[in-house]
This record gives sequence, C-alpha cells and structure tokens, in this order.
Amino acid sequence: MTIMGIDPGFAITGYGVVEYKGNKFSVLDYGVITTKAKQEFHKRLMIVNEELTVLMKRFKPEAVSIEELFFSKNIKTALTAAHGRGVAMLAASRSGACIYEYTPLQVKQAVVGYGRASKAQVQQMVSAILNLRQIPKPDDAADALAVAICHAHSSKMAGLGSKGI
Amino acid sequence: MTIMGIDPGFAITGYGVVEYKGNKFSVLDYGVITTKAKQEFHKRLMIVNEELTVLMKRFKPEAVSIEELFFSKNIKTALTAAHGRGVAMLAASRSGACIYEYTPLQVKQAVVGYGRASKAQVQQMVSAILNLRQIPKPDDAADALAVAICHAHSSKMAGLGSKGI
Repeated sequence: MTIMGIDPGFAITGYGVVEYKGNKFSVLDYGVITTKAKQEFHKRLMIVNEELTVLMKRFKPEAVSIEELFFSKNIKTALTAAHGRGVAMLAASRSGACIYEYTPLQVKQAVVGYGRASKAQVQQMVSAILNLRQIPKPDDAADALAVAICHAHSSKMAGLGSKGI
Repeated sequence: MTIMGIDPGFAITGYGVVEYKGNKFSVLDYGVITTKAKQEFHKRLMIVNEELTVLMKRFKPEAVSIEELFFSKNIKTALTAAHGRGVAMLAASRSGACIYEYTPLQVKQAVVGYGRASKAQVQQMVSAILNLRQIPKPDDAADALAVAICHAHSSKMAGLGSKGI
C-alpha cells in the first residue's frame, strides 16, 4: 500500500510518501512545498494544490493521511493554515485516494507510543522506523512521514488496506 | 464589469453575481451552494470548489469579491469555514478573475455606510441598491451580493476596473 502523509500548512506543506508492505516500510519520497509571502494569497493556494496534485499523479497513493490542525494561540495562523489544508484535501479527493485524518495526538501515539512525545522523539522514531540514516529535514517533511506511518499502523490495527499489508 | 461576491463557508456558501456599469447594477444570479453533514469532509470541499467553478465558467466574472472570515468564539467552526474559503479562492484563482478580499466591517461600511450596521440593515440596503422587490434569500446569498456591491463601490473609489464603470 502506498501512503502519502501530509503535514498541512500554507507557507510550508510537508509531504512524505511510503510503501508499506508485509510490515516493512520503504520511503519513496519526502519534502516540502513552500510558498512565498510576497505572492498573492490565492496564488499560494494554487501552488499548494497543484504541486500536491503532481505528486499524487506521480505516486498514485491508495491512502492519503492528513494531520488535523493544532490550533494554538494564534488563530490567524490557524485560519490561514486551514485554507491550505482545504486545497490539500481537495487535491487528495480529486486523486481518488482514500483520505484519513489524524490528530497530532494520534500521530504521536502511533509513532512513539506516547501522546505527549516531543518533536525530537517523533523525528527519531520516524528515522528508526523508516530505517533512514539521518532525521528527515525539514521538520515538516519528517512530520508528514510520521502521519504516513500513523496511518500504516492504524490501518493495520483496524484491518484496513489488507490487500497491501 | 461582472462581479461575483462570495460569502464563504462550508455547509453553506453564498454567491451573488452582478453587472456594474455606469453606476448601475443588474443582478445576474444569486444563491447558495450547500453540502450535507453526512457527506465526507473532502467530498464537501470538492462540491464547493466544483459548483463555484461551474458558476465562474458561466458568468466569467472579471472580479471575484470574497469576504474575510469573522471568527467568533467557535474556533472549530471558523477553521472548517476556512477550508471552504480556501477551495473557493482556488476556484476563483483558476478562473483567471482578479480576486479582492473585504472584511465584514468593510462590507457594511460600503453597503450601509456604517460599520456596525445590523444584518437586517445590510439586507435592506442590498435590496434597495439592486432594485429588488424582496430581500434576497437565504441570508448567505444576500451577504454575497453585499460583498459584490462592496467591491463595486470600493473599486469605483479606488479607480479600479475603469473599463467597465
């Protein structure tokens, strides 16, 4: 099963694509889509949507796993990120993939086994689980891989995606 | 100049299309796009995006005027609406229209001349300005027409869109 994890955002959207088969992961790709502050708001949304669409056409993930937004004190930032998450979900929906949503708590629990794990702990576990020599950079790409792992583990537990696992 | 006003949302997205020429308005269309709670989140986003795309292809607005979100106490509702606003802006961006954003305060000031006007006052002014016999229903459609009027008045003041005015 090919899973694309997405750490949604606006200035930076993280993505990570993994193949999960027989309890083993292989990493197909990971990275970030960035948009610049000087660009118009709607054009930035278009870039996020189009670049994700290109990635989805390339990797044809059966499952897209997207993190729910954690809204901190800055509501304006959260609202802007939600615009980006909307166009990311639209790209996933159009690709025909099944879409799954996980909270940051669920991601930490699935990857580290502990909901209050630190960012560094999550990144180290991502690196270990995926057998990577280094911690994936930037952070948003590592987070996206964590969301992909979360779905693989969750779907295994729930008996989803039995074809590929 | 053809202007499409959008009152963005998720369960309900209002739209209103007007022609503004020589200081006079004619209403081309108005209404709402609704999505049902039982539908999947990403499918609802797709419906909002696709139905707006159809309307934009039909009316070919030169300007799309979209209201900024007013976030009240319910942050969850605001975040959901921001997803809808994101896919609405994406539709507008793809259509090639110029996109303008106005706060609820700017809309009220432009339509009623008073930033703290009530919803009923705004609706009555929309009806009067557009020479409609009745107040447009539902509220979201009336709000969308108000956003369109706001852009017409603002662009006149700013000397924008001089071709059509």
